[in-house]
Amino acid sequence: MPEWIYPDFEPLPKRPLFLCIISNTDTGKIPGLSAAGTSPKLTDYTPGADAELVETNRIITMPELPEAPGGSPTPAIVTRAALNLTGVPSMFVASGLRKKPAVPYAELGGEAGSDIRVGPAVPAASAIFENALLLGRKLSRLSDCVFIGESIAGGTTTALAVLRALGYQAGVSSSFQSNPTALKEEVVAQALSRAGIKEGDLKNQPLRAVQEVGDPMMPAALGLMQGLLGCRTVLAGGTQMAAVLALAKALKIGGDVSIATTKYIIEDKTAGFKEIVEAAGRPYYYADPGLERSRVPPVQIYAQGYVKEGVGMGGASLLAGIYGLTQRQLVEETDRVLLTVELPKR
Amino acid sequence: MPEWIYPDFEPLPKRPLFLCIISNTDTGKIPGLSAAGTSPKLTDYTPGADAELVETNRIITMPELPEAPGGSPTPAIVTRAALNLTGVPSMFVASGLRKKPAVPYAELGGEAGSDIRVGPAVPAASAIFENALLLGRKLSRLSDCVFIGESIAGGTTTALAVLRALGYQAGVSSSFQSNPTALKEEVVAQALSRAGIKEGDLKNQPLRAVQEVGDPMMPAALGLMQGLLGCRTVLAGGTQMAAVLALAKALKIGGDVSIATTKYIIEDKTAGFKEIVEAAGRPYYYADPGLERSRVPPVQIYAQGYVKEGVGMGGASLLAGIYGLTQRQLVEETDRVLLTVELPKR
Repeated sequence: MPEWIYPDFEPLPKRPLFLCIISNTDTGKIPGLSAAGTSPKLTDYTPGADAELVETNRIITMPELPEAPGGSPTPAIVTRAALNLTGVPSMFVASGLRKKPAVPYAELGGEAGSDIRVGPAVPAASAIFENALLLGRKLSRLSDCVFIGESIAGGTTTALAVLRALGYQAGVSSSFQSNPTALKEEVVAQALSRAGIKEGDLKNQPLRAVQEVGDPMMPAALGLMQGLLGCRTVLAGGTQMAAVLALAKALKIGGDVSIATTKYIIEDKTAGFKEIVEAAGRPYYYADPGLERSRVPPVQIYAQGYVKEGVGMGGASLLAGIYGLTQRQLVEETDRVLLTVELPKR
Repeated sequence: MPEWIYPDFEPLPKRPLFLCIISNTDTGKIPGLSAAGTSPKLTDYTPGADAELVETNRIITMPELPEAPGGSPTPAIVTRAALNLTGVPSMFVASGLRKKPAVPYAELGGEAGSDIRVGPAVPAASAIFENALLLGRKLSRLSDCVFIGESIAGGTTTALAVLRALGYQAGVSSSFQSNPTALKEEVVAQALSRAGIKEGDLKNQPLRAVQEVGDPMMPAALGLMQGLLGCRTVLAGGTQMAAVLALAKALKIGGDVSIATTKYIIEDKTAGFKEIVEAAGRPYYYADPGLERSRVPPVQIYAQGYVKEGVGMGGASLLAGIYGLTQRQLVEETDRVLLTVELPKR
């Protein structure tokens, strides 16, 4: 195992599969909360555009490359690079997605998540969970190791809300370099108040926590995990996926489950990734994609704490390491992906 | 291999996957043409309801069990039975589907097919082909043997139109016991005339034949076949899938491709299944599901030539045989599926 992967990931998977759940929420449109998409108007298109980029290196249904405000491109470029290099097959899974990608994807149904300050977030959480369970069962017959990433704007805020409802005190990460922690806590406080929930009230009702203050990615991830019992499952993400582990613990979902993320998440002092994962009782892995080596400045600054995670970037990087690729190869392919991505003609 | 499977299917697949393409067309709504759905109004819901039945043994988005006019239930009951008994995972694939099922499925996009008498059938055939190719490539990394069935009302008429455009003289089968051959030939003649095509004109332009007088299932099946190169592929269907083999030959798609159907198709004297498959240069298999043993009269009459094929019933039955199940077990499970299927509450 190369030195940029911690710790060793063994045994090596034989037929790995990389899933990425894509969802929309109105929480993600609260100004200042998410760095996914340059304007709230385009936020709904970001997950679909990420799918298009990873599957075809083209953006089809959005006018531009998804970007963070600091000018960094979507982490989908790293995921695309890692999957290109390894040949690991990917499949995007839509759950509560308004704007569908123009590439193949698996559909779980459901509506986009509500603004958690205003009303119940995911009333159909149980139906999404059931559909995801069905899909997970099938995939467990075909793959021996399934990675599950996410692309959902505003997802760290709904993660924070769910963590508070479950009684976890840890903070969450952000795609901004400077985490808008106060705004997130305010949104979460309003949401819990609107739902009549105090911190920890739902520690034994995880699906209700998702219904009230979560997002449609969560029941999809939980259902897949339940369906994939018997197959090794690796959540690929930062504090959003750590929150899913907390939910899975409360749901008593067993199995060989771990989480893989980036060094940038591990080093984020505003977020309690390790704390949440350890409380949930699951092992974690992380990869250092080494993006300071990039020749493209907006990619270099990932290493300074912009973007950090998303679209399963950490898990995909881990796969690249598992397949024996070097950090340099991953960075060079990431640059190549970014410089060759096709955008819609104006 | 049991005696109800012809010939032996070897070597045995290790990780088989059962796909079923679901599509809608306006050709399928021409009165008297298709037996799928009891009324043209419900025709669009039939493929989605078949998906729901196979995945969950429930009908969710349609008010009743899909039926043929003779009163026989959808062949999805046999497919469900065979997949239940074998544990082979299934995945429904939507291509040009108006009414989506309430269970997980893979989405390829595209619009429902037009009435071929009125306008070009599938203008977006190339885009569907490309998306299906992407999906096929992924699945070829996970499975060693992929079956591809279909559920599309009116599909034998578009198959006939495509065969004529390619210059094949053979006839197609029907879900009616008495094949409305004259009506089909009339619709096809009108479609070819509308498109300005004479028989055989498009023998070297198969994708144009699909665009003009085909249906959205065809480019999906062709793209999957191309993407699955290197993986054993078995089309599961009657003359509709035989027409896909004819298109694949014209497209010079190679690989280990065969076709599996029911004894009822092989015995259909109005249809040229064997003739088309032999001209396309591919081997065929067939299963005798033995439905005359059923205790349910509307299922018994399958053996008298009602329904015959659909939802990959022949291929799924073949899988049951490959897994060592007896005809009796398949029939008993089919009866059990039919008698326990949950319908929407009125």
